[in-house]
Amino acid sequence: MYSAKIKVTLRKSILDPQGKAVEHSIQSLGYKNILDTRIGKYVELNIDTKSQEEAELITDEVCKKLLSNPVMEDYTFEVVNVNGN
Amino acid sequence: MYSAKIKVTLRKSILDPQGKAVEHSIQSLGYKNILDTRIGKYVELNIDTKSQEEAELITDEVCKKLLSNPVMEDYTFEVVNVNGN
Repeated sequence: MYSAKIKVTLRKSILDPQGKAVEHSIQSLGYKNILDTRIGKYVELNIDTKSQEEAELITDEVCKKLLSNPVMEDYTFEVVNVNGN
Repeated sequence: MYSAKIKVTLRKSILDPQGKAVEHSIQSLGYKNILDTRIGKYVELNIDTKSQEEAELITDEVCKKLLSNPVMEDYTFEVVNVNGN
């Protein structure tokens, strides 16, 4: 069994109004030195497969097909073995 | 300048209907070996401060006060130095 931890973030060139809203909230709490807040999605999933390579391939396909919008978003992931399988 | 990368996830004991919905979508694409999908938030922010310790302290406070719901969510973060400051 492998566990994939995926981060999906808006591309740098895309405005992030949700991030801006959070940044304003943080600054109104008094943290004036916090800048450039950006919000993304974080997805964890388990993959029941035999090899690390296969798990990474499946994760990449799922990210491309479903979890990210390739026009606006980038994704990064790491796949780790979670038992002796 | 330090960059904080924060993951906010629902606690294991809390049902994650959004994750379940994504899991069903993934399985309907033919990936039957994907299990236990859970969705969280991913936040990146920059902190204009002098020391790693101060940046970590500020990040922890912001997570507690604003970015996570301590009843339902857990958070983890890492803080990295992004220039020679």
